[in-house]
This record gives sequence, C-alpha cells and structure tokens, in this order.
Amino acid sequence: MVYKVGIIGFGKIAQDQHLPAIRANPNFELTAVASQRGLKPNEAKHTFTDYREMLRDLRDLDAVAICTPPQVRHTIAREALEAGKHVLLEKPPAATLSELEDLRRIGHDMRKVVFTTWHAQYNKGVDIARDTLAGRTVKRLVVTWKEDVRHWHPGQQWIWQAGGFGVFDPGINALSIVTKIMPQPVFIKQSDLQFPANRDAPIAAELQFSTGVEGADLRAVFDWRQTGPQTWDIEIDCEGGPLMKLSLGGRRLEVDGEIVADESDDEYPQIYRRFEELLASGQSEVDEAPFRLVGDAFMIGRRVQVEPFQD
Amino acid sequence: MVYKVGIIGFGKIAQDQHLPAIRANPNFELTAVASQRGLKPNEAKHTFTDYREMLRDLRDLDAVAICTPPQVRHTIAREALEAGKHVLLEKPPAATLSELEDLRRIGHDMRKVVFTTWHAQYNKGVDIARDTLAGRTVKRLVVTWKEDVRHWHPGQQWIWQAGGFGVFDPGINALSIVTKIMPQPVFIKQSDLQFPANRDAPIAAELQFSTGVEGADLRAVFDWRQTGPQTWDIEIDCEGGPLMKLSLGGRRLEVDGEIVADESDDEYPQIYRRFEELLASGQSEVDEAPFRLVGDAFMIGRRVQVEPFQD
Repeated sequence: MVYKVGIIGFGKIAQDQHLPAIRANPNFELTAVASQRGLKPNEAKHTFTDYREMLRDLRDLDAVAICTPPQVRHTIAREALEAGKHVLLEKPPAATLSELEDLRRIGHDMRKVVFTTWHAQYNKGVDIARDTLAGRTVKRLVVTWKEDVRHWHPGQQWIWQAGGFGVFDPGINALSIVTKIMPQPVFIKQSDLQFPANRDAPIAAELQFSTGVEGADLRAVFDWRQTGPQTWDIEIDCEGGPLMKLSLGGRRLEVDGEIVADESDDEYPQIYRRFEELLASGQSEVDEAPFRLVGDAFMIGRRVQVEPFQD
Repeated sequence: MVYKVGIIGFGKIAQDQHLPAIRANPNFELTAVASQRGLKPNEAKHTFTDYREMLRDLRDLDAVAICTPPQVRHTIAREALEAGKHVLLEKPPAATLSELEDLRRIGHDMRKVVFTTWHAQYNKGVDIARDTLAGRTVKRLVVTWKEDVRHWHPGQQWIWQAGGFGVFDPGINALSIVTKIMPQPVFIKQSDLQFPANRDAPIAAELQFSTGVEGADLRAVFDWRQTGPQTWDIEIDCEGGPLMKLSLGGRRLEVDGEIVADESDDEYPQIYRRFEELLASGQSEVDEAPFRLVGDAFMIGRRVQVEPFQD
C-alpha cells in the first residue's frame, strides 16, 4: 500500500527532514504541499497556499504531516481529521495539553490515526537504553541539554513569546527520551525557570525529578546560552550498574564506558516507518508524557529573572 | 452497604466539609482519621498520626478521603491504592498533571476507584446550566472570580510558593464549572499572570478561551485582591439565547433574569453521594480537564510583576 501524504507547513523541518524521509520510503507518496509562502518541492503534484483547499480538493489524500509552528496545529489537525485524513504531528503536538487531548478524542471518534512524533525517541541507542533499564532501579539521572539558541533559532521571535516554550523547545526532546527509557513514571518535584528580563519564555531551566525512589538523584539542566561545543547528554546510573551515557541527542550510547550504539541520524525515516505501521493497523499513538512534564514544569516552576537576551 | 472510610489530613476542609458530609450519609462510617497533629473527631474509632499505620493496621477500611495539601497527595494516594483502598481526592487532585495520570493508571491496575472531586460542580444550578447549554453555541462567557485572599487564606504560606497555584486555587473551581457546563471543549488561547514581586505564585490572572467558534468572546478574570463584596460569577450568552448567570460559586442560577436555582450549600453531601455510586459500580471518575487548563494557563502564560503582597 502506498499512502498519499500532504505536508502542511513547508518550513525548515519539513524541507530538511520530512521531505527526504518521505522520498526515501516507497510506501509514501508526497502528493501535495500546503505552504502559506507558496514553497514547493518538485515532486508534489499539487501545491496550495491554503491547507483548507488541500483538504477540500484532494479527496484521495490519506494523511497529512503538520509541520507548522505549534500555535496553529490544533485547528489544522482538527480540520484534517474531520476531513477524514490521518494526522502526523511534529513536536510539540499542540500549543496546549487541552488541545492535544481534543485531537486524541477526535481521532478516536473519526477512526483516524493521530501520531505524536518525538523525533529524539527514534534512535537505536534510546531503544537499547530502555531495554537495559527495564526492571532496574535508577539511582542517578542527569540530563544536560545545552545549546546556542543564536545558532539554532536565528532571529526566530515566536520561541520567545508566551507559549513559545523557550528552552523547552529543545528540552522536550530530552524529556521525550526520559519518559521513553525510564522504568518508572517520572514526576517533576522542583522547577527553576530563568526568564530574560526582555522575554516571555525561559532561556534556562533546572528540574528535579522523582520516581518515588528515596535518595535517588534525578535532574535536568537546560540552557540556551551555550556557545562552543553543544551538549545533549543523559547519564544514568543504576543500582548494581550499569552506568550509561546517551549523547548527541540519543544517537550515541555508552554502557559502562563501551560504545554500543553510534548511528548516523535516522530519526525521521524511523518516524515514517512507525507511521506506516500505525496506518496499517489503524492505531493512534498519542504520547503526551513529555508535553505533560513541560506543563508541570511551568505550573510548579519558580521564575527567576536574568539579564536581557539580544539576538 | 456501609463503606468504612478514613480521612487523611484533618485540616479545615476535612473538619468543615468532609466530616459533616460523612456523618450525614448512612452509607459511610468514619472509621479512622490520620492527622499529623493528632486531631480527631469523637466518632472515629481509630486515630493515627502516620497514615501509613492506618493503611497497614486497618485491613477492613474500604476507602480514604485525602484532604492534605496537594504536594503530598500523590504519594499518599499511591500507597492507599496499593494497600487496596479506594481513594477520594480533594481538589486539586495532585501537585502535577503527571502525578494525576499516575494515580489514574494505578487505580486501573489495582481495580480500585479513584475519584477526583471538584466541589463547585456539585450544585443544581451547574447541572441545569449544563443541560441548558447542550447543543447550543456560546457566544459570550465571562468568568469573574474575585475574592480576598487575606480573608480566605489567612497566613497560609504554601499557596504563595511555586506549585501552590496562587489565585488558581479558587480559580480552578470556576474552571471546573466551565469544563462541566460548556457544550464544546474549551482551550486557553491567552493567559496573563500577575505575580507579586515577593511571591512565586500569581495573585491575579486573565484568561482568554476559545472553543473554535469564530467571534465568540470567552474569558475569565481571577483576582485575589478583592475586599468588600466577593464575586464568583459566570455569565453565559448563547446564540439565540438564553442569557444565563451562575453566581455564588455555582449555587444560584438565573436564566433570562429569572432565578431557577438558589440552593444552600450541598456540595460535599453530593460528593459523597457520587462516591457511593462509584464505589457501588467500581468505576473511577478521574476528571483532569480543570487541572489541565491550569497547566495550560501557566505553560502559555505571560508573567507580569506587580506590587509585593503582604499578609
């Protein structure tokens, strides 16, 4: 079966990741692109500046991949589901938790697949870490996610607005790995959020977690002010071993000092392979756990004002 | 069937509301109280300063009502469920959304009832409002929840700490009515939070909602600085009428200017009647919608610093 898919929102993530992943997978055909700016790849038969026309005109479109900024994802996804299309959602899947819950419900009611993608989860090292941790007690978890916002988000203003998530935009990738690999549910017990004086979103955050195990040391540091080498590491220490380190955002895994996974980036091809499986089985996959932790971090977060940030 | 119930946390809400509601209901027997301060009512056969002793010693206890501050509810509820007790949770049901999701899962796994109570929902006027709104389009919703924190929370420090919810402690009562009565799901589109310079929780909030209906005016104002008359009102205007006003926190309902409900406070007796139904059927009722809106309000909230608040 070849699924006809349309991309809605044709910005950087769609061009860099979704387009090549769809091209490389013989079970998907890129039928259409909807882009407000009128951008288009060569192979899309149909292009639209208004996604509503796409949903209305292309009756045989099977699915859409929604790659817009998060603020408009819910409205688009709702209309796509109501038009009978399956929906793949870039991360974060919506602007709020209530919107995501609504999409889960509509997908269920319409019998359409809703797929929340968390790209950092699609690494072999992450799977191995999860399998290694199963049944063990984690006594130490240290997440260090430090990158240079000027490099990764040059001039982007929406990430600094209220609802733009700030440093949680990359941080949620770390949280999506944590919720996938940890053998027990993880709760946020303390959250310190650093807001630049001139911005409405945090530039750094420190989180303390708990799984209910007494004496465990579980925490995360997110920082968007890291120049020079960038760090996307998760260290995990289990009772009775082993000592594990995931680095490069999940692509490399060391277990007791030995490298057991070190892959080139295969995240989006894996996402589309998973989407195939879900479409074939008609099952949705709505994983709200990473997003819920972000909501919790803001809800119980202590706000500290730090120096203004200039692009 | 008479259910043996234990109260955990015997502060103001337990003494003022749970105790008389249990006393007045012949299907419940107050068997035990666990209070760190050693407080006890006359009729409780057993009293404990440590709830863990209660859970361990009283094998025939059917259920517990958890009336502690929210920060410790999850741990207590988890242990109660694992000890085979049904659980009633005061509002808010946990410190974070992830904790509540965990309790839902454990209740399901242990086949025990988990009941999230939102006391403002248990008013006849709220039920009538919900029934009246079914199938209609709301074009205007204005929530005004203004009270004097010094009167209602004299000297309470935890409400001002990060994770103490601030003005959302009363505001969540309004949200629990909104989510119950509105005929469509409600999303928060904009949130402005006022933090006193010397506090880590908001003293006032303005929320803008959407249900996806274009041009509708849906909003809430919460304020903890209201001296004099206190206001707990919700006005609702439907396309083609009627015009409704819920006041006194849900106890009075006017429809097109006519009072159709004006009850004395029956919230907690109704909560225990509902608990009876759930226990009899073995069904949980985990309604996270009001709590999720609070998480959303903090996550997308814009923070404004206002003048320091002194008790």
